[in-house]
Amino acid sequence: MLLPLLALVQVITSAPPVYDGRQGQLAIRVPRVAAPVPLDAPLDAFVPAIASGRGAPRHHVLHAPGTAGFDDVYDNFFPQASSQWDSLGHVGYGPDAFYNGATGDDVANGRRNTVEHWARHGIAGRGVVLDLVRTMADAGRPYEIGTSATFGVDDLERARERAGVEFRPGDILLLHTGFAAWYMAQAPGERYRVARAMSTPGIASGEEMCRYLWDAHVAAVACDTFAVEAFPPAFGEPPPGGFLHRMLIGQFGMALGELWWLEDLAADCAEDGVAEVFLVSAPLHAPGGIGSPPNAVAIK
Amino acid sequence: MLLPLLALVQVITSAPPVYDGRQGQLAIRVPRVAAPVPLDAPLDAFVPAIASGRGAPRHHVLHAPGTAGFDDVYDNFFPQASSQWDSLGHVGYGPDAFYNGATGDDVANGRRNTVEHWARHGIAGRGVVLDLVRTMADAGRPYEIGTSATFGVDDLERARERAGVEFRPGDILLLHTGFAAWYMAQAPGERYRVARAMSTPGIASGEEMCRYLWDAHVAAVACDTFAVEAFPPAFGEPPPGGFLHRMLIGQFGMALGELWWLEDLAADCAEDGVAEVFLVSAPLHAPGGIGSPPNAVAIK
Amino acid sequence: MLLPLLALVQVITSAPPVYDGRQGQLAIRVPRVAAPVPLDAPLDAFVPAIASGRGAPRHHVLHAPGTAGFDDVYDNFFPQASSQWDSLGHVGYGPDAFYNGATGDDVANGRRNTVEHWARHGIAGRGVVLDLVRTMADAGRPYEIGTSATFGVDDLERARERAGVEFRPGDILLLHTGFAAWYMAQAPGERYRVARAMSTPGIASGEEMCRYLWDAHVAAVACDTFAVEAFPPAFGEPPPGGFLHRMLIGQFGMALGELWWLEDLAADCAEDGVAEVFLVSAPLHAPGGIGSPPNAVAIK
Amino acid sequence: MLLPLLALVQVITSAPPVYDGRQGQLAIRVPRVAAPVPLDAPLDAFVPAIASGRGAPRHHVLHAPGTAGFDDVYDNFFPQASSQWDSLGHVGYGPDAFYNGATGDDVANGRRNTVEHWARHGIAGRGVVLDLVRTMADAGRPYEIGTSATFGVDDLERARERAGVEFRPGDILLLHTGFAAWYMAQAPGERYRVARAMSTPGIASGEEMCRYLWDAHVAAVACDTFAVEAFPPAFGEPPPGGFLHRMLIGQFGMALGELWWLEDLAADCAEDGVAEVFLVSAPLHAPGGIGSPPNAVAIK
Repeated sequence: MLLPLLALVQVITSAPPVYDGRQGQLAIRVPRVAAPVPLDAPLDAFVPAIASGRGAPRHHVLHAPGTAGFDDVYDNFFPQASSQWDSLGHVGYGPDAFYNGATGDDVANGRRNTVEHWARHGIAGRGVVLDLVRTMADAGRPYEIGTSATFGVDDLERARERAGVEFRPGDILLLHTGFAAWYMAQAPGERYRVARAMSTPGIASGEEMCRYLWDAHVAAVACDTFAVEAFPPAFGEPPPGGFLHRMLIGQFGMALGELWWLEDLAADCAEDGVAEVFLVSAPLHAPGGIGSPPNAVAIK
Repeated sequence: MLLPLLALVQVITSAPPVYDGRQGQLAIRVPRVAAPVPLDAPLDAFVPAIASGRGAPRHHVLHAPGTAGFDDVYDNFFPQASSQWDSLGHVGYGPDAFYNGATGDDVANGRRNTVEHWARHGIAGRGVVLDLVRTMADAGRPYEIGTSATFGVDDLERARERAGVEFRPGDILLLHTGFAAWYMAQAPGERYRVARAMSTPGIASGEEMCRYLWDAHVAAVACDTFAVEAFPPAFGEPPPGGFLHRMLIGQFGMALGELWWLEDLAADCAEDGVAEVFLVSAPLHAPGGIGSPPNAVAIK
Repeated sequence: MLLPLLALVQVITSAPPVYDGRQGQLAIRVPRVAAPVPLDAPLDAFVPAIASGRGAPRHHVLHAPGTAGFDDVYDNFFPQASSQWDSLGHVGYGPDAFYNGATGDDVANGRRNTVEHWARHGIAGRGVVLDLVRTMADAGRPYEIGTSATFGVDDLERARERAGVEFRPGDILLLHTGFAAWYMAQAPGERYRVARAMSTPGIASGEEMCRYLWDAHVAAVACDTFAVEAFPPAFGEPPPGGFLHRMLIGQFGMALGELWWLEDLAADCAEDGVAEVFLVSAPLHAPGGIGSPPNAVAIK
Repeated sequence: MLLPLLALVQVITSAPPVYDGRQGQLAIRVPRVAAPVPLDAPLDAFVPAIASGRGAPRHHVLHAPGTAGFDDVYDNFFPQASSQWDSLGHVGYGPDAFYNGATGDDVANGRRNTVEHWARHGIAGRGVVLDLVRTMADAGRPYEIGTSATFGVDDLERARERAGVEFRPGDILLLHTGFAAWYMAQAPGERYRVARAMSTPGIASGEEMCRYLWDAHVAAVACDTFAVEAFPPAFGEPPPGGFLHRMLIGQFGMALGELWWLEDLAADCAEDGVAEVFLVSAPLHAPGGIGSPPNAVAIK
């Protein structure tokens, strides 16, 4: 296969980026050649799907015996059954109150807030890895992954400091909780229990968290857990508490990513001490799409 | 939406890359900030599908009236109905003779050559845009797009020279023929005629072309037409003539991309005279997958 | 399997029905025990589908290894890809002019003319087999099945006389042309040729045929060919010529059945000389359905 | 619509059948004309599906605007999500021990025990309605439908006596518990509770019930509840207790039908005091099928 040749001639890699002073110019010094780190789990990684109603796609390989060709097709492909971006049409602040004034009808008919709007631009920017697994272990506060373990602002701050980074506007936060890997490693019986209970770790809801994320002006929060926020939330509580999606998507217009595969990236960051990456993501160009696989790689 | 903040803080952009001399190091100077250029056409762009048996996906948006949430699911999703990568399992040199010794059974059961092997690595490298539309027009040799117009080695060379680039091992060639945009702009009647006839432009088959691409050691050839090679080929002719996929995929292990959206990128290259890009692609992490959307962006 | 016990205790079978004279009463004498004759071809019998855009369903058998249970699911299930009833929403007299005043919107939203209206009643009545294969052979006028061979009123009359039946209001005509069996027996290459050309035998269009069927007051015309009428019709001709579906469905509200399996029934009728049957059909109870498998048996 | 003409000329109806004494002959006297009573609930009647993993089909109506034609297609069509027959491949006596010596591989590959074997014969025979709703009410022993209310042999006997019928070999029992109608009438919240708990009424498991059904030599037991047997069973108990499907399907080869629509038929039987019917069912001619809609009507 010829693609390995790419590994020898990486155009761009980076150690901590060095700003070279000229206005609008940024030089990226490359101390080593590295391969991109993919961040999508397999399409069928989460079986059973944690959200009822979703499931792994049904894949048909098409082949006429005796010929030299194959084709394929997918049915029952839920973009949110595995690693995903939530579009701005996935959750609103309230019924008929979606981000930036879009109505339920706008979303249902793919006029506004759906995923193709991101696909037409692509996503490329600075990713910052906050490794909650290692941070909480170092702090002597390990947590049980198959529960609604909750990370507050102070925990995120601890992780940010451990990562040695400052937030910049437009950052994409990558939160490593360990959930995806843990879920995939459980026996079917335990996975069914977790799926039924939908108890998964994540960040806290409430005003403090909302202010923290807004003030950082992060463009997106992606993670390897089910819902970004600890789940299940207190659905009945009013915002800015309760279901945090209503604020982050419905009010802030943040891109939320869930069930990403962050084990390899987190291990790499632990090894070289570098927690910032060039994050590139090309969501499916899906008209009217509500979710999409991230189709994301981290380059560092 | 906060993602526009990304546009202000592009980590990496490039004018012609400047090699700064140190072994293994590459500094990328950034004269301007640019957004990534997405290269995927919409999932439903090619209706009718040019290959019979494929078609646009059927998309269901799921929503309980009166609630603030949407989800979605796709059926009949053919990864090769729109912009695509062909995996190394799509076409073999012969029945049961797939790239690198894989058998038909290896492919059918997703053991070898299928698309997840690329997804686990990601694709990031140097892309080179060969604009056949502008090249042939400049050379006084325009062609009719809805036909099997054929580009030989000399045409590719002419385009390479016009682009001002030398090939490097591992390059990803991006061939702009104008077909995708042309097809999408036709009235349904004309599109049905073309789909039935399957007459589409592309590169020539034969030994000269095979040697040219092999000697350049390109890792991949992606294009905006149906089949990379002019279609239909002379299926009965033996390799290295006849159906070029048998050589490029089945023997060389090249990644072939088809029906990509290259209009915006080609226009951008025409404007600034820069034909090389940083090409990032994250194929779907689809176990046993035969094809995938490119999920590709060009960064320059 | 216990169902064979049913064969020993058939509640109702019939030789030519004997009317016993009392008003509203019908005695059915049973000289022999017979099994029902199913009239549905397999769901995947017609590959490629003769109408482009349709195809055989994709069937997934679901099974956890080591367990004693199986389940299954179908994707890409086109009710009109194999044996079918056309609902009264399938074809209108004109755009927005469907049977009995229904609009396109009525059909699209499943309010009127869709198949569940038949399912809620069931179909049970007198079926009359007109065997055009044997009739035309006897008359020294055999026809080529893979063509648009056309049967006029005189041919139907000849078949009716040969069958020894008089039409009664509410009859379900069962026209045996031999097409389904012929198509299923062809090599793939010939089937692709026929599917592309869509040349299939059937009844003539025009005023004479319309009057003939209307005067007979038949409730339904089912057949083993693609379109009931010879195909392709002269689409541009105005009714009552041209596309006969516009008259039979759009104006008369007849139930048209296509691609039924009639070989066994026709052979049975040839053997015992009895061409009338008790026809029972339970279309799928499919809200908003445009077509349905016949789910039909003939009992005689 | 012309099908109503069928109502005027019903070929066969029956009051209690009168045997006219000649060997092998059965005269059916018809005191009145009646329409068939369909027994299939709508495809989307049970939402959420009671068995996790199943769900209502996704229906696409296909229509080019401005034309006079519609077509349609179904994805995610689970034959066991609504009214159904279980084929003899649905449940085995044990892993790899399916009815009549069939292996799991036989079933998985559609060689034995799958539904097309029934479709090729059709099902037509004597149906006997046992109305447990009215029987238990009359006996002063009403039951709560949304629970695992269990009917023993004595309850079935009470219902048989109330129906005034004797079983005959080959009979198809039709058990009316009221569950389907009850489920469809519940608010979504209650339906989700029942679906999660899977607590549904049905017959008892154990040796007494097995002997009773075997000695009656019934060919099939169809019902309007989820599983024929009270659910959930004591899965860990060995046969003939525990999961009754293992005996009835896996050992006896009985056809089990579930979630049929029996309200109309039960009401009709209550009104005229006639509990036997001519039951006709045409399962889908689905190669390798594990389940099928019943496509059933009762004629009386």
